[in-house]
Amino acid sequence: MNNVTEQLLRLVADFKGSFKGAFNIREDGQCAGRQSSEHIKITSKEDGKPGLDIRIDPGTKGETVYIPACVTHSDVNDLVYNDFFVGADADVVIVAGCGVHADNEGEARHNGIHRFFLEPGAHVLYQEKHIGTGTGSLKRIDPITDIYLKENAVLEMDTVQLRGVDVSERSTTGKLEKGAKLIVRERILTDGKEWAKTVFDVSLDGEDCSADVVSRSVAKGESYQEFVSSIRGNNRCTGHSACDAILADHGRVNAQPALDATHLDAQLIHEAAIGKIAGEQLLKLETLGLTAEEAEERIIAGFLK
Amino acid sequence: MNNVTEQLLRLVADFKGSFKGAFNIREDGQCAGRQSSEHIKITSKEDGKPGLDIRIDPGTKGETVYIPACVTHSDVNDLVYNDFFVGADADVVIVAGCGVHADNEGEARHNGIHRFFLEPGAHVLYQEKHIGTGTGSLKRIDPITDIYLKENAVLEMDTVQLRGVDVSERSTTGKLEKGAKLIVRERILTDGKEWAKTVFDVSLDGEDCSADVVSRSVAKGESYQEFVSSIRGNNRCTGHSACDAILADHGRVNAQPALDATHLDAQLIHEAAIGKIAGEQLLKLETLGLTAEEAEERIIAGFLK
Repeated sequence: MNNVTEQLLRLVADFKGSFKGAFNIREDGQCAGRQSSEHIKITSKEDGKPGLDIRIDPGTKGETVYIPACVTHSDVNDLVYNDFFVGADADVVIVAGCGVHADNEGEARHNGIHRFFLEPGAHVLYQEKHIGTGTGSLKRIDPITDIYLKENAVLEMDTVQLRGVDVSERSTTGKLEKGAKLIVRERILTDGKEWAKTVFDVSLDGEDCSADVVSRSVAKGESYQEFVSSIRGNNRCTGHSACDAILADHGRVNAQPALDATHLDAQLIHEAAIGKIAGEQLLKLETLGLTAEEAEERIIAGFLK
Repeated sequence: MNNVTEQLLRLVADFKGSFKGAFNIREDGQCAGRQSSEHIKITSKEDGKPGLDIRIDPGTKGETVYIPACVTHSDVNDLVYNDFFVGADADVVIVAGCGVHADNEGEARHNGIHRFFLEPGAHVLYQEKHIGTGTGSLKRIDPITDIYLKENAVLEMDTVQLRGVDVSERSTTGKLEKGAKLIVRERILTDGKEWAKTVFDVSLDGEDCSADVVSRSVAKGESYQEFVSSIRGNNRCTGHSACDAILADHGRVNAQPALDATHLDAQLIHEAAIGKIAGEQLLKLETLGLTAEEAEERIIAGFLK
């Protein structure tokens, strides 16, 4: 494992020199370390595709799996397929950060295609942190996340990307069966000329399933962000999506949420708000002795917490 | 003017045997009556297209113009281009209802393409009621409304379509200059196999202009409604759009609102909510002696008022 990887791991996966329990470290498309645990088995894919099968036994509780991936120099275009099979009633944390370091003119790129298959009653907290470092010309991350939730399964997805990634286009889909629940919290801050697009597509198929998708974004500099969501209520269900965006400098945000109710008992709600920080909020903090810049930073940090 | 037209006029334009002031009655693609007033001139288009130029003098106050259009039997496909030129500081009401009557298997169809050019400080209340009658197979209305608002001009658009129109696809666009204001209130109730789509596209180009677009819809029977909106904030401005929909029976609603902020001082907000009438609301009215159907009707009437 090289130095850059170690630095990136500290940033995206709370790495402190070692991981406890099951993990796999991916470095420039290769495996730089792997460990299974008693209840969590990590194996290379057998169909020839790059990537892993992560199998979590039914009833596994309190364990964390680390699946970070790092690209440590330019001209690497990493593509990986990871499938998570989570047994019934398991309750685990999955940490899947991704760091991209560009050191010259070429593109440093990571595409992670993650599929989650949750058996009945399973619960997963999925954390995904994306970061770009280095002064190379282009850092690009395009995560695809496909989520399949069986009866009463719950997936909480917490995804963060704060500066450093030049281009990112993320796609998240969910298909929910009876009583299943999907909770998404997304936070994106772009600056400079960064470009970030995020697309959600959720099918509420089972009775009494629910989705709650909240995206908070800050667009600074000359950056551009696009939020696209589609929530389909195909049964008695509840769906909520929200996109709150703060503009600064010459940032630009485009929000395109869609709701589609095909069932009488579908209850779907969406809210979106785009604007800059209110003048009074800034003034208040400036009165307390902060500069205008510090006040803005403080408010943005609170918004993205 | 035939009987059907007279009936339709009563429904869409509050006709009580005659109109006061300027008016033009369109019947199956022909002119069935026209009158200009001192300050409002109505003339046929000179470029060969079917339709009218309606010129309202600067400073005209308190007058109402009636421009209803009726299709009174099947196999009529009426297409009309009406342009409204509203002088500076005028303050008028424009009533442009449209009635379509189908009496046999063919399609009875009306396409009204209306453009509004408001000079600085002009104020227009634009009322548009759409109705379909008769037992013929297909009544179709496709209104296109393009609105151009100069400095401090205000247009309020009040559009209603309650049952009877089999297919409707409406498109409304607005381009707003400095301080201009666009207020839209749309109410649509579909039933049976009716299909209604409504598309809004608003560009907030001038400093301190604003748009407020509110659509309320009820989808009953097997009907389908689609709401698409796009509000672009290209300057210091405020934009709000809301889509509230009630489902009943097997009605289906698809809402696709978009916000696009290209300017730091653009403040854009959207809300959408789709669901059926809450059980408690119905129960309350049923306790007061209404049948379930009466209770539902009462609530829907209040929602669409």
